[in-house]
Amino acid sequence: MTDSAPSHGFLFDKWLHLYAERVETMRSSEVRDLLAVTARPDIIALAGGSLDIKASNLGRVSDIVADVLTEAGPEALSYGPSEGHLGLRKFLVKFMADEGVDCDVDDIIITQGGQQALELIAKIFINPGDTIVAEAPTYVGALNAFLSYQASIIQVKMDNNGMIMSNMEKTLKDLRDKGIQPKYIYTIPNSQNPGGLSMSLSRRKKLIKLARDYQTLIVEDSAYRRIRFEGEDIPSLKQLDSANVVYIGTFSKILSAGLRVGWVIAPRPIREKLVFAKQAADLCSSSLAQRIVEQFFHETPVNNHINKLITVCRRRRDTMLDALDEFFPKGTTWTKPIGGFFIWVTLPEYIDTTAMLAKAIQQKVAYVPGKAFFADGSGRNCMRLNYSFPKEKDIKEGVRRLAEVIEQEMELYKRLKV
Amino acid sequence: MTDSAPSHGFLFDKWLHLYAERVETMRSSEVRDLLAVTARPDIIALAGGSLDIKASNLGRVSDIVADVLTEAGPEALSYGPSEGHLGLRKFLVKFMADEGVDCDVDDIIITQGGQQALELIAKIFINPGDTIVAEAPTYVGALNAFLSYQASIIQVKMDNNGMIMSNMEKTLKDLRDKGIQPKYIYTIPNSQNPGGLSMSLSRRKKLIKLARDYQTLIVEDSAYRRIRFEGEDIPSLKQLDSANVVYIGTFSKILSAGLRVGWVIAPRPIREKLVFAKQAADLCSSSLAQRIVEQFFHETPVNNHINKLITVCRRRRDTMLDALDEFFPKGTTWTKPIGGFFIWVTLPEYIDTTAMLAKAIQQKVAYVPGKAFFADGSGRNCMRLNYSFPKEKDIKEGVRRLAEVIEQEMELYKRLKV
Repeated sequence: MTDSAPSHGFLFDKWLHLYAERVETMRSSEVRDLLAVTARPDIIALAGGSLDIKASNLGRVSDIVADVLTEAGPEALSYGPSEGHLGLRKFLVKFMADEGVDCDVDDIIITQGGQQALELIAKIFINPGDTIVAEAPTYVGALNAFLSYQASIIQVKMDNNGMIMSNMEKTLKDLRDKGIQPKYIYTIPNSQNPGGLSMSLSRRKKLIKLARDYQTLIVEDSAYRRIRFEGEDIPSLKQLDSANVVYIGTFSKILSAGLRVGWVIAPRPIREKLVFAKQAADLCSSSLAQRIVEQFFHETPVNNHINKLITVCRRRRDTMLDALDEFFPKGTTWTKPIGGFFIWVTLPEYIDTTAMLAKAIQQKVAYVPGKAFFADGSGRNCMRLNYSFPKEKDIKEGVRRLAEVIEQEMELYKRLKV
Repeated sequence: MTDSAPSHGFLFDKWLHLYAERVETMRSSEVRDLLAVTARPDIIALAGGSLDIKASNLGRVSDIVADVLTEAGPEALSYGPSEGHLGLRKFLVKFMADEGVDCDVDDIIITQGGQQALELIAKIFINPGDTIVAEAPTYVGALNAFLSYQASIIQVKMDNNGMIMSNMEKTLKDLRDKGIQPKYIYTIPNSQNPGGLSMSLSRRKKLIKLARDYQTLIVEDSAYRRIRFEGEDIPSLKQLDSANVVYIGTFSKILSAGLRVGWVIAPRPIREKLVFAKQAADLCSSSLAQRIVEQFFHETPVNNHINKLITVCRRRRDTMLDALDEFFPKGTTWTKPIGGFFIWVTLPEYIDTTAMLAKAIQQKVAYVPGKAFFADGSGRNCMRLNYSFPKEKDIKEGVRRLAEVIEQEMELYKRLKV
């Protein structure tokens, strides 16, 4: 295979340094180790982003597949429409109505999880160098999708009530002064990834007003909305301003990530372009996977199913919060998630969580370094911990091991300082 | 939803006229009708590109899913690696060895059918305005993927032995004279879509030499290779020049399109970029779908399975060729496919198959107008007919109806001429 291999490097000229550098960061030896070892049974992985399938109702999936194939075998195994399977889109109209969003079957496009919605939106909007505004920190997969189209990403600081709107306004104003119009504002307003916090209603209203004033679009990622432990259900941005919000949903966090089924709801001119982009991307999503989701929720009331997941996740969140209280040293802080799968931990500024990961893995515990959640390299003293996947005894033991690693880093620093 | 709806048009500026025009062509009322009606049971659809699932061995899929879920339920329903499920990639190493291609597990990336491989390759290579060389005519989905990244596509004429290499050489030379280096040459050398013909061995060797001389890459789409009715098995381009060929395969044409499982084999620097692009695009392909394919071929010898498909497709091809001989008027010509799913028909130059489609649908038969297979609007007097999906009696009746429609067009032309 290597005989007189030509160099293909000369054919590439489009991958900007930013993306290349980021890819390097993500592929640094520590992070490669991380990805390689999280599958090892002796490592406690607090690094994932998965539902614990065993805690779900999915024992019945084989029966469901049998039903799907009996009812619609050839269709389930053939190409379907690029927009997605009609039966599933009809179900989603009801699912969204439960969330207070009034939409029509035609408004919905099925995607390969929420990730493909992010990709397709990036594809139709982003020219190299275009600006996107997002939360700081935010979902690493969204950063990757936007950066892969060579976006410039500006992140706006959050507190416990979501993005700080005075910062948002200043960001938008500064951009306008420079003649820059951001293509969209990307936000995860509910149970945000990575911190598990939600944006308050008053900030949502302010965000909507700012987006209109500055003539930009809002992309609302609703992945974790249904996994809410406490507090009121706050209306989605889509509900508050349908005409200016593109909404992304997914079954990865409430049913199965391995089916790869998500959806996007967008105003008409955007939706039409998304369908063309989806068609060019993969023709259509798996007909079988879409019908499995449809059939699952045909047989299982949504709320019964989701309440079971919430019970499991809430218990695990409480276990992790208790363990952090018990084991983590002074000088460390963390979010108290009101929903979702994650806790965001901040360590003293002198600790580099990317460098520390190798030591953690030696102690048989893994996390995601904070840098992954920023486009500009900040977050180096932060980390994301997952509680939705590991069992409670592993959560407790994992946090204990991690606390030891952090204490050793703090000791080392103190000794070096003296 | 429409209250004070902002116009999002101002946020778009990247969709070139070429793509927009093409999308308009593809969405013209005739073609919309076509897409809408092919699902109606009273229409004989010669317009599809599907395997007849009922003619396949897929009655057993529910059993297979049960096996997959018993053996690896949680894994099958969770995220998997972006490169794809290891077990399936191991199977593909053997599958490719059967085709004479020597590759390693690490060389293979699983995609959402062959279409996503085309999309990801376009994403990493094509800057707006970059040139791609392809066959004339070629697969409409490839044109869509390349055009969605704003490629300029030059198509090289074919005869019964594939692309004419003197034309290819002239094309490459003309481009070089203009200072243009094409990013890659896209070809479907086996049982080509739409004509079902294969490139001769001597032309393959010449193509490989030209690609190296002109320092461009070859992208080989092998979708229909295994569906071969006659003639010798000619070595793939990948086998002949592994270091300069990106190979695309799919299970859509030999197992099920509804699972959305394909693969790409690429030289290392390209492969690495493809994995990043895949990760940004959808994180990973469906773990369940990948394991269904793996398990299916674990239980079913590949050649036994494919030979059954070939028997069905060959019989249907023969039926269609016989019907064309019997019914089609003088002045029409068509290819004699040595494999694949399609026959390419050329009508007299004065007939516009896009305009004629509405009349065909009135007569309850559908086809794909030839224009779809060209980026420059040629092919207007051509059409693609599919024989893999319809039953034999429908093939015969569909061709008979279509012959009537064509004869009416010819009559009309003669009368107008007089």
